[in-house]
Amino acid sequence: MANQWLSWLPFLPADVPADFASPREVAAFELAQALPTLSPNLHVSLAEDDSLGEGFHAVRKGDDVTIFGGKTGLLYGTYWLLMALASGSALPEDHSSAPQYALRMINCWDNADGNVERGYSGRSLFFQGGKLTYDPARMRQLGRMMASVGLNVLCINNVNVHNPAQLLIEDDLPDLAKLAAIFRPFGVRLMVSIDYSQPMRHGIPTADPLDERVQAWWKHQAEVVYAAIPDLAGFLVKADSEHRPGPFTYGRNHAEGANMLARALKPFGGMLVWRCFVYNCQQDWRDEKTDRPKAAYEHYVYLDGQFDDNVILQVKNGPFDFQVREPISPTLLAMPKTNLALEWQLAQEYTGQQIDIFAMPVMWQELFADMPRNSIMAMAAVSNLGNDACMTGHPFAALNFFAYGALAWDPDACQPDDIIHRWIRLTYRFAPDDENALADVLLGSRHAYEQYTAPLGICWMVTPNQHYGPSPDGYEYQAWGTYHKADRNAIGIDRTADGTGYVLQYPEALRRRFESTQTCPDELLLFFHRLPYTFKMRDGRTLIQRIYDDHFEGYEWVERAASILKALPLPDFDRALVDERIGRQLHNAREWRDIINTFFHRLSGIEDVHERKIYR
Amino acid sequence: MANQWLSWLPFLPADVPADFASPREVAAFELAQALPTLSPNLHVSLAEDDSLGEGFHAVRKGDDVTIFGGKTGLLYGTYWLLMALASGSALPEDHSSAPQYALRMINCWDNADGNVERGYSGRSLFFQGGKLTYDPARMRQLGRMMASVGLNVLCINNVNVHNPAQLLIEDDLPDLAKLAAIFRPFGVRLMVSIDYSQPMRHGIPTADPLDERVQAWWKHQAEVVYAAIPDLAGFLVKADSEHRPGPFTYGRNHAEGANMLARALKPFGGMLVWRCFVYNCQQDWRDEKTDRPKAAYEHYVYLDGQFDDNVILQVKNGPFDFQVREPISPTLLAMPKTNLALEWQLAQEYTGQQIDIFAMPVMWQELFADMPRNSIMAMAAVSNLGNDACMTGHPFAALNFFAYGALAWDPDACQPDDIIHRWIRLTYRFAPDDENALADVLLGSRHAYEQYTAPLGICWMVTPNQHYGPSPDGYEYQAWGTYHKADRNAIGIDRTADGTGYVLQYPEALRRRFESTQTCPDELLLFFHRLPYTFKMRDGRTLIQRIYDDHFEGYEWVERAASILKALPLPDFDRALVDERIGRQLHNAREWRDIINTFFHRLSGIEDVHERKIYR
Repeated sequence: MANQWLSWLPFLPADVPADFASPREVAAFELAQALPTLSPNLHVSLAEDDSLGEGFHAVRKGDDVTIFGGKTGLLYGTYWLLMALASGSALPEDHSSAPQYALRMINCWDNADGNVERGYSGRSLFFQGGKLTYDPARMRQLGRMMASVGLNVLCINNVNVHNPAQLLIEDDLPDLAKLAAIFRPFGVRLMVSIDYSQPMRHGIPTADPLDERVQAWWKHQAEVVYAAIPDLAGFLVKADSEHRPGPFTYGRNHAEGANMLARALKPFGGMLVWRCFVYNCQQDWRDEKTDRPKAAYEHYVYLDGQFDDNVILQVKNGPFDFQVREPISPTLLAMPKTNLALEWQLAQEYTGQQIDIFAMPVMWQELFADMPRNSIMAMAAVSNLGNDACMTGHPFAALNFFAYGALAWDPDACQPDDIIHRWIRLTYRFAPDDENALADVLLGSRHAYEQYTAPLGICWMVTPNQHYGPSPDGYEYQAWGTYHKADRNAIGIDRTADGTGYVLQYPEALRRRFESTQTCPDELLLFFHRLPYTFKMRDGRTLIQRIYDDHFEGYEWVERAASILKALPLPDFDRALVDERIGRQLHNAREWRDIINTFFHRLSGIEDVHERKIYR
Repeated sequence: MANQWLSWLPFLPADVPADFASPREVAAFELAQALPTLSPNLHVSLAEDDSLGEGFHAVRKGDDVTIFGGKTGLLYGTYWLLMALASGSALPEDHSSAPQYALRMINCWDNADGNVERGYSGRSLFFQGGKLTYDPARMRQLGRMMASVGLNVLCINNVNVHNPAQLLIEDDLPDLAKLAAIFRPFGVRLMVSIDYSQPMRHGIPTADPLDERVQAWWKHQAEVVYAAIPDLAGFLVKADSEHRPGPFTYGRNHAEGANMLARALKPFGGMLVWRCFVYNCQQDWRDEKTDRPKAAYEHYVYLDGQFDDNVILQVKNGPFDFQVREPISPTLLAMPKTNLALEWQLAQEYTGQQIDIFAMPVMWQELFADMPRNSIMAMAAVSNLGNDACMTGHPFAALNFFAYGALAWDPDACQPDDIIHRWIRLTYRFAPDDENALADVLLGSRHAYEQYTAPLGICWMVTPNQHYGPSPDGYEYQAWGTYHKADRNAIGIDRTADGTGYVLQYPEALRRRFESTQTCPDELLLFFHRLPYTFKMRDGRTLIQRIYDDHFEGYEWVERAASILKALPLPDFDRALVDERIGRQLHNAREWRDIINTFFHRLSGIEDVHERKIYR
């Protein structure tokens, strides 16, 4: 059923026809099907103005609206208008909008065999049995979903390019070109993850970026690819990371590695997106000098200014890996002469796996509070979509996809409260009390998840590999560089100048804020500091009491949320999923609460001042 | 190369021909090929005497030896003679031997898809792609290996019967009959693991053992099976265990469940082997009342006397699951009116996975010191074989298969020092110094493994699922009932009368020994008692110091073993494997040493009195 899949676009029941070639045709089609029910008296004209590019300008005179916009701007303006009507907003007389970031990307971690790495919504929408295999109608729905929230680049294959996904830019290129054509009318351009060592599959004995044979191979391959897909957004690369090949193998730095590929793409306007996720994933846990959060900065910042202008370094929001709470990655603030993309993960790998409710906008706004908007020029997010009947596994996880589009378009226009209400209104059209009730749950969900899981920025107390559920020592003696070093007295890694020095990677204001326990935000205290359990928080509680309190409160929140959700008039399809998942969330939150509390009680021997039940 | 595979039988280079039908033919063939090199002047006659059954009686007069024996006794006598010659033992003038236990079984945990559950020597010797698929020559080698050490029953499929392994007693029965014929001349009878719910695959809506349709189905199926394989040893069943179906589903006890099957087998002389491995594998870690080691006793002992005479309850050596050190299972001492089989695990699931050296005879003798030989009437062992070039993964792991045969034949004749020397002599024919050096390594290997892994009977500090390498809290909050509850002051579960009461399951002498910390063996202290780290051991050390000492000493032992092994004149094939594996053992032992020591140092805050390096 299309509506279940499209979530926030229930007012567009008819599929976009297969024979459209331009965004303008799509825009006209959507207006024609939606206006009669949303606003029968309104008359909307589309006026193409290429100078507006992706932006648009809507002018209303009574019931006459004209949308001026560039080729895709017309489509974005159309969706803006229809969603404004559907969510009951008053139409302004004059509304202009243009995206802050030129590239607003979705990265799918889909493997050619149909598995989705860290996917929690079923199998791949694009692949099966080693081949591109998709439902064209669903692709158009996906194109529409993306366009409706302003997203314009889709990378369909996993950054870990497992055989035979490398064939996307070779034997499977004709099929990829067909897929690109499906997305084109939605203003969505494809991108493709490539294998850095691919020349070696063609008889070249090296993948050294300074080797002329390697350069020639990529130059030729880019010509082949762009002959088939002239508007391909570019290539995405994960190199020298978690056992992926890369320039380090040949003693080259990442500027040399990235520029080589960028130069092959340059003649065609293609971008080379290079993920900055390099760290030692074979660290000896005994080694106290290496501190994984320092890795990206150390590997990249000294290269600022050396990357070609069509290279984009894609940097994760935090210095670790999509934990429930991390400080902003200092790399995002330290490369003014380099194109940066900020990478989020909509897939809830560490944040509840689309079982637990976890609305991300609050987290996103925290980061933007610490980052000038122009530090980056693009945004990317790991997809949370799959081929389940509910495309996001949990119906509420669709909020994150929706809100991410708004954020990538304009971070200032993605205020959590506002965007959450807008999504609820579009999706469920509840009465105000119900809307507010659900909005409160969503708004509070990140805080609650943070309360019942790993405490105060310590990160990583998850079940290894699976990353759902608690395992306080699960990563403690492993090779991933993710340690908390909790002992009977204290917990945490000292990342100040007296410790690993990680905090020195920040600009002065942030450095000062983080390096003192008096100014460091409570939620990041254990990210930056090693503290005794008896440490006095600013609110007068001890650290250990704060940990206990958070865990009891976090679980209680889930209990309250469960009873709120029970009372909501959800449609049957959503009701069944929400009931099933809140049951699992309750179980998960209880495990987290009790295991974390027991773990710290065993270590510290300190009792809860409120004498709540802590198991021995 | 046959010799690599046959390990301790290098003096039998020629394969046993395919057309032999009787053990006597095999015996004559082996004598003919081996005597000319082992003892050219010796003349051996075979004299069948059915009254001796599996036993034999060898009489020597000068260079003339007559072996009297039953059908298979002749073959066992022949292998005894040849191995005595090959290992340089003096031939007595008169030697009689008969097995203590009638059933000396190997249980393979091979799945129909060719995987071996907990297998560390490659894939299945019997299955591939859902079908019985084997090399007949290798089957004859296996038959010879088993016969040479007196083993007489082989169950080829996993006790966890995964689809389509249930077809072994249906569609695949003709193939199974062919395999049975291959093993028959070696005195080896097949056994087959069956799926308790199998009638339900045939339109019967239940597997209730008291349901007449179920009884009739099994009766009929037994007829079908025995028509094809008249000497099948019987069925092996894992019921109501770790998600396997069983009589509990229907409110029946395990006597009712087992007897129903036994009655189907009875007319054909078949045995029903019923594994006593029932416990709650979905325990809430918060639940302090349930104590998994108590489970087998509670589920079975009250049924003593209610099992039919062709039922054998197969009981693991310890109350948990093949840990490096467990006390004897009290169930083995509490069912005088029931046929019991003692189950070992040659596959080194928790004992080094055929990477780390772990010779089992020492462990076996400890158990027999606590158990009258006639408490049991059969023995079973989970196979450590696979289709690797080295059948046991590690060449030294062949010792355990070899020694298990000797143990199952006669526990008194399996003294660790003696059996280890015998195996080395047969396998490597080293000079005495080298033989002694390797024997010392093997003899010490269990103690060393115990020293560097989980301390003093606490068990389970292994990496979950995989069961190799340390994870001190890995099972602590899981559903498997395997907890140590280490906190900043103490560790262990009190299993005395004041605690879970587990110790009350033992006969008085053992109960007294275990229940007092003054008499409980050091190596089992933490199995039975919860003790503070400052507890004074009988030798004056504190518990924590003993833990540190053991871990440093265990690792040092591996270093010494590595240098001893380096100097041995191993054949090339063994040399390569031994070198590779001792390297991995060193790494593993170092991880164990440091992680366990760090874990306890973090908890206790107590320093090593010898100031050796403990990481923070």
